[in-house]
Amino acid sequence: MSMDTLRTEVDRSLGEFLDRQRPIVSGPDLAPLLNAARELLSGGKRLRPAFCYWGWRAAGGGDEPGIFVAAASLELLQASALVHDDVMDKSDLRRGMPSAHRRFQRLHEKSDWYGSAEQFGEGAAVLLGNLLLIWSGEMWRSSGLPNLEATQPFHDHMRTELMCGQYLDLLEQAHGENTFESALRVALYKSGKYSVEQPLRLGLTLAAGGGAPWIEELCVEYGNRVGIAFQLRDDILGVFGDPVETGKPAGDDLREGKRTMLIARTLAAATPEDAATVRRLLGDPDLDAEGVDKLRGVIEASGALDECEEMIARYLEESLASLDDAPITTEARSALADLAVAATSRKT
Amino acid sequence: MSMDTLRTEVDRSLGEFLDRQRPIVSGPDLAPLLNAARELLSGGKRLRPAFCYWGWRAAGGGDEPGIFVAAASLELLQASALVHDDVMDKSDLRRGMPSAHRRFQRLHEKSDWYGSAEQFGEGAAVLLGNLLLIWSGEMWRSSGLPNLEATQPFHDHMRTELMCGQYLDLLEQAHGENTFESALRVALYKSGKYSVEQPLRLGLTLAAGGGAPWIEELCVEYGNRVGIAFQLRDDILGVFGDPVETGKPAGDDLREGKRTMLIARTLAAATPEDAATVRRLLGDPDLDAEGVDKLRGVIEASGALDECEEMIARYLEESLASLDDAPITTEARSALADLAVAATSRKT
Repeated sequence: MSMDTLRTEVDRSLGEFLDRQRPIVSGPDLAPLLNAARELLSGGKRLRPAFCYWGWRAAGGGDEPGIFVAAASLELLQASALVHDDVMDKSDLRRGMPSAHRRFQRLHEKSDWYGSAEQFGEGAAVLLGNLLLIWSGEMWRSSGLPNLEATQPFHDHMRTELMCGQYLDLLEQAHGENTFESALRVALYKSGKYSVEQPLRLGLTLAAGGGAPWIEELCVEYGNRVGIAFQLRDDILGVFGDPVETGKPAGDDLREGKRTMLIARTLAAATPEDAATVRRLLGDPDLDAEGVDKLRGVIEASGALDECEEMIARYLEESLASLDDAPITTEARSALADLAVAATSRKT
Repeated sequence: MSMDTLRTEVDRSLGEFLDRQRPIVSGPDLAPLLNAARELLSGGKRLRPAFCYWGWRAAGGGDEPGIFVAAASLELLQASALVHDDVMDKSDLRRGMPSAHRRFQRLHEKSDWYGSAEQFGEGAAVLLGNLLLIWSGEMWRSSGLPNLEATQPFHDHMRTELMCGQYLDLLEQAHGENTFESALRVALYKSGKYSVEQPLRLGLTLAAGGGAPWIEELCVEYGNRVGIAFQLRDDILGVFGDPVETGKPAGDDLREGKRTMLIARTLAAATPEDAATVRRLLGDPDLDAEGVDKLRGVIEASGALDECEEMIARYLEESLASLDDAPITTEARSALADLAVAATSRKT
């Protein structure tokens, strides 16, 4: 199955699921919630559904409608995380459009309502994120696949782990200085696990029921590594990404003071003067284009950018090698290889 | 079963469930999340579990361990709503203690961490609320009761409805002037449904499987009415409650500008001068004790307080009368009658 066909199936499943919420989320007052959900779900690379779907296929699953429902539900979890993330970071933009809380704030302002528009926007976005979170579990279960019950513990685990990972991410920024080890932990738990390893594990387990040893091996040797490389790419895009492609302002992670592997490696290798510059500018909400350029220069000069690119290349290479040993079809092997490349070399 | 014994079973089930999260929510970094969850769950009236349990008993269920697990899971949903509510309202206190986001803010301040302590507190509380929300569904399903699958659609419905109800509540404050009809809708959807009617329906359906007509009748004639009366009592406590009992500052709802039935009736019946006073003072975040007293005086003088008390009394009376026709045991009838009284005459 091509990525385009998969995308079409995922889109259709999401549309049908949201339509089924209409009797509850009904009337003009509640329409903005459902509209916001639809818009949020209209974009995205559908990587998580793809890892889930190809896990399923790798373990012998066929093209049943249920797998598209299960895989698509992961987009709801992701959308929930993005909406809440933007509230927590007070981000104005997401994929080049106003973030959900800013949209609700704007609705308040346009409607000339009472009270603080900002507070209304944040409150509405918290609730929208909650709906998406609830729906992700509901849609997952609605797939009706036979091994749902055996897979549910992994699904539960993934969601708790994601929230813990995001908390570790908050802590990492709060702690200031970070280490290679702590940066790797955050990359894995706030993103790598639920973006790659867990969707893959869910798909594999949905098809195979119990966990054959090769399944766990594939999750760790391939999924875990692609997951970390996926987040390292994200870290690089957060600093060097093209705003036109990422839909976020240039150097947004620098302004937010994100403590990533890129930063940990920069501080470890930079000259004392350059390190002082990083400590001074990183996390300055008013950082301008000149400041962004300055920090980018220091990160490049320290060798940290090259090091992170090498890490990504190494993780990718090892993950691809691990596919050779897995007892899966040629089609699944080739699709997972393509996905690993797509997830780690993306521009958005 | 006495309310005290039920409480013990609920407490034990919650403790065991949280213990099972330890392998994921592990280590000193994540401990504050689990500790905060434990503290949040140590208090509360356990009304929602009680309505669920007595629904189960009313439809013929016995004292199996699973029902305590299912009933207790409703406390996780409630705790999640409280944590997020306090973030959305920027409330400092909950049950006389600092609210969750203020605790995390304090942790940041005490630890002398980087960045905004307030933003860290809010972010951590959003994540804590998410964990509690996820866990409420996970614990519910872990009860292992035979009719779980038949009941799941009601459970899903309840959670989506709760988020929509909370959004309607935000809208109600934003709209300013409200009507009896809109106030009733908000009272029902933001609180009445998930506090009384839905827990009752879940318990009944868990025991009976499909929905016999008397079950739906009991949910509407009894559950719906007790739910509205429950929230009307909440509205009165938010204005006239004793801070020692409620754990919230006196007149907190007035400062937050909550547009409740009490306020709708006040504005409909007050003299033009008094109505102008309400419009001027309601929602003033700096409202002092004198202002609170002034507003209380206007609400009482308008007759709105008496009207709301009469509404509660009428809903209670009708709900109690509906119990007479239900084909349930004397023990369940008496317990549900006691619960209706407790839910509508409480001081906290």
